[in-house]
Amino acid sequence: MAPTRLHVQVNPASAIAEAFSEPRLRAAAAGQPVELSFGQTAAALEAGLATAEVLLLAGGAPLHDLARRAPKLRWISYTSAGVEWLLKAGLPEAVVLTNASGTHIPKAAEFTLLSVLMLNNQIPFFATAQRSHRWAPNPGGTVTGKTALILGMGALGGAAATALARQGMRVLGNSQSGRPHPDVVEMSRGDGFRAQLPQADFLVIALPLTPATNGLIGAAELDLLPRHAGVVNIGRGEILDAAALAARLAEGRLAGAVLDALPQEPLPPEHPLWDTPNLVITPHCGLYDPADYAPRCLEAFFANLARFRAGQPLHQVVDRARGY
Amino acid sequence: MAPTRLHVQVNPASAIAEAFSEPRLRAAAAGQPVELSFGQTAAALEAGLATAEVLLLAGGAPLHDLARRAPKLRWISYTSAGVEWLLKAGLPEAVVLTNASGTHIPKAAEFTLLSVLMLNNQIPFFATAQRSHRWAPNPGGTVTGKTALILGMGALGGAAATALARQGMRVLGNSQSGRPHPDVVEMSRGDGFRAQLPQADFLVIALPLTPATNGLIGAAELDLLPRHAGVVNIGRGEILDAAALAARLAEGRLAGAVLDALPQEPLPPEHPLWDTPNLVITPHCGLYDPADYAPRCLEAFFANLARFRAGQPLHQVVDRARGY
Ligand SMILES: NC(=O)c1ccc[n+]([C@@H]2O[C@H](COP(=O)([O-])OP(=O)(O)OC[C@H]3O[C@@H](n4cnc5c(N)ncnc54)[C@H](OP(=O)(O)O)[C@@H]3O)[C@@H](O)[C@H]2O)c1
Ligand SMILES: NC(=O)c1ccc[n+]([C@@H]2O[C@H](COP(=O)([O-])OP(=O)(O)OC[C@H]3O[C@@H](n4cnc5c(N)ncnc54)[C@H](OP(=O)(O)O)[C@@H]3O)[C@@H](O)[C@H]2O)c1
Repeated sequence: MAPTRLHVQVNPASAIAEAFSEPRLRAAAAGQPVELSFGQTAAALEAGLATAEVLLLAGGAPLHDLARRAPKLRWISYTSAGVEWLLKAGLPEAVVLTNASGTHIPKAAEFTLLSVLMLNNQIPFFATAQRSHRWAPNPGGTVTGKTALILGMGALGGAAATALARQGMRVLGNSQSGRPHPDVVEMSRGDGFRAQLPQADFLVIALPLTPATNGLIGAAELDLLPRHAGVVNIGRGEILDAAALAARLAEGRLAGAVLDALPQEPLPPEHPLWDTPNLVITPHCGLYDPADYAPRCLEAFFANLARFRAGQPLHQVVDRARGY
Repeated sequence: MAPTRLHVQVNPASAIAEAFSEPRLRAAAAGQPVELSFGQTAAALEAGLATAEVLLLAGGAPLHDLARRAPKLRWISYTSAGVEWLLKAGLPEAVVLTNASGTHIPKAAEFTLLSVLMLNNQIPFFATAQRSHRWAPNPGGTVTGKTALILGMGALGGAAATALARQGMRVLGNSQSGRPHPDVVEMSRGDGFRAQLPQADFLVIALPLTPATNGLIGAAELDLLPRHAGVVNIGRGEILDAAALAARLAEGRLAGAVLDALPQEPLPPEHPLWDTPNLVITPHCGLYDPADYAPRCLEAFFANLARFRAGQPLHQVVDRARGY
C-alpha cells in the first residue's frame, strides 16, 4: 500500500508552534507510512494542499474553498481541542475533522484540582488583598465533602471529576447526553444543570464553544450559585458572561474565580477583568504541557492514521452538527 | 477520684478565640472529670491560676512567675503547634507543656498540595503579571515525577509528604532524627538537607522555630536550589530570610514562593514583601480550619486528660531542650 500523502501545516504565531517544529515532526514521522510535506507559510500550505490526502494542522490557517484547493483531502487532524473556528471555515462534507480532545488530560486534571483548591483556600481573595497590602485572614475548611459541579463531561470534565473525587469531593456533572461517569454522583443533561447550581460550592466550566454553549452561563445562572461559590472556566471565554461574573465578584455575591479561558485573548491591558477583585487570570496555558503535548498528539494522530489506512472509523472525530 | 481543676484561658485577640468560646468549652467539658473555670481577662487568669492543676491556653497570656502564681499547676496544654514564645516564659520544671501538633493535619495536607501546585503552575507569576495587566503565558508540565524537599517531618511535614507523594511526586525529607517516613524516598538529618537542595523543584519549610532553625534558610541555602524552584513556608517566618528570598524572586534566581508564615505578623502595609514579584502571601491562616480545629484540639486534650489522671505519659509533649 502506497504511503499516505500527509501535509503538516504549523502556524508560527501559535503557542504550540515550537512543540510542532519541523525536526520534531520529521522525527515522529520516521518509519510511518507517510509521504510528508511540512509548511509554515501560505505558499507552503497551498502547495501541500494540492496533493495532500491528510492535513495535520497546528494553529490557525486559511481553509476556505478546500474542495478546489485540496481535491484529494479526506481528513483534517487539528492539534487543539476547540474547533469552533474550523467549523466556520465551510469544510467539504467529504473531509473528516478530528481534534486533540484527550491530549490535555493529565494537565487538565492537575489544573482543575489546583483551581478548586485555590478557590477553597481563598487564593483569589488573598491575591487581591496583597495588591493593596492588606493582611486579611480568611480561613476555611478542606474541600473534603464539598460539592463541585462540572459542566461538560468530555475529556477535560472527566479528568476533572476524577481529580476532584479523589480529594473526597462530591462531584456533580452535566453533559449533552447525561451519560454516567464513575466519579460523578449525579449527572444531568442539557438544561438540567440549572437545578444543580444551588448545590455547587464550585462551578467548573469544561464545555466546548458551540451555538448552544455560547453565553450559556450568564447573570441568571451565576445567581443560582450560593454566595460562597467559586467559578473556574477552562472551556472557552464566550461560554461565560465575564462582565456578569466580575460584577458579582466585586460586590461579594460570589467568592472567587479562576479563568484560564477569557472573553478576549490575549486580554488587552485596558480590559477591566485584570483589576476585578477575587479573580485570578491564567493566560490560557493552564492545560498546556509543552513537553508532553505534541508527543501525545502525534501518538494519537499516527494511531488514527493506521485506522484511516485500514478504512476503519477514526477516533476524536468532530460531529459537525453538534459542533464538538 | 476528684475532678481535675482546669482553667481555660482564651486570649480574645487571638484568631482562634471564637472557636474556643466559653459556651463551646463548657459544652465540650460536660461529662468530663473537670472542675472548670474560664477566663479572657488578666484578672480571670490570676484567679484561675491560683487553684488550677491544668491550664488550657488559647492564644498568648502572661505566664511569668508561675511557681508563685500557680502553685498547683502541673500541665499547660497550648492550643497551637508553635510554642517558641512559651519556652521563653520560664515555665517551672514541674509543669509539663503540650501543644496542638497534629491538629492541623487535614488542612496542612491540602494547603501544602495547593501551594506546590500553585508554584508548579506559575500562579505567583500570573498573579504578578495580572497586577500590571500583562498577558504572559508560561506553561509547564504536571508535578508528577518532580521533586519536593520537606524540611521538618513532624505532623505538618508528614501530612505534606503524603499529599505530595499521592500526586506522583518524589518526596525528600529532612528532620532532626532522620527517621524514615513511608512517603519519603530519601530522608536526611540535621545539616544533610543542604545536599538535597539542588534536587528540589519545590522546597517546603515545615519546621518549628527553635534556636537551631532561626534563620536556617538564608541566601546560601536558597542559592543551592535550582533557578526554577519554588519555596513554601508553612512553619515560622523567622526560619526563612525573606529579604534574601525576595531579592531572588525579583531577579528570577528563583521562580516563585508561597508564604503562610511571614517575618512580621500581621505584615505591615509598608513592608516590601507585599510587592515582591512571583510571591503569594496568605495571612497565616492556610492551615486553620475554623470549624474543625477546636473540636480536634479538645478531643486530643480530653484524651490527654485521661492519661494525666491515670498518671500515664501525655501525648504532644514539648521537649524544652529541643524547643519543639
Ligand atoms: N483551557 C484550555 O487550554 C483548553 C484546552 C483544551 C480544551 N479546551 C476547551 O475545552 C473544550 C472541551 O474539551 P474536551 O476535550 O473535554 O471536549 P469533549 O471531550 O468533546 O467533551 C465535550 C463535553 O461537553 C458536553 N457538551 C457539549 N455541548 C453541551 C451542551 N450544550 N450542554 C451540556 N454539555 C455539552 C459534551 O456532552 P456529551 O458527553 O453528551 O457529548 C461532552 O461531555 C474544548 O472544546 C475546548 O474549547 C480548553
Ligand atoms: N502556618 C501555620 O498556621 C502553622 C500551623 C501549625 C504549625 N505551624 C508551625 O509548624 C511547626 C511544625 O509543626 P508540627 O506540628 O509539624 O511540629 P512537630 O510535629 O513537632 O514536627 C517538627 C519537625 O521538625 C523537625 N525538626 C525540628 N528541629 C529541626 C532541625 N533543627 N533540623 C531539622 N529538623 C528539625 C523535627 O524532627 P524530628 O522528627 O527528628 O523530631 C520534626 O520532624 C510548628 O512548630 C509551628 O511553628 C504553623
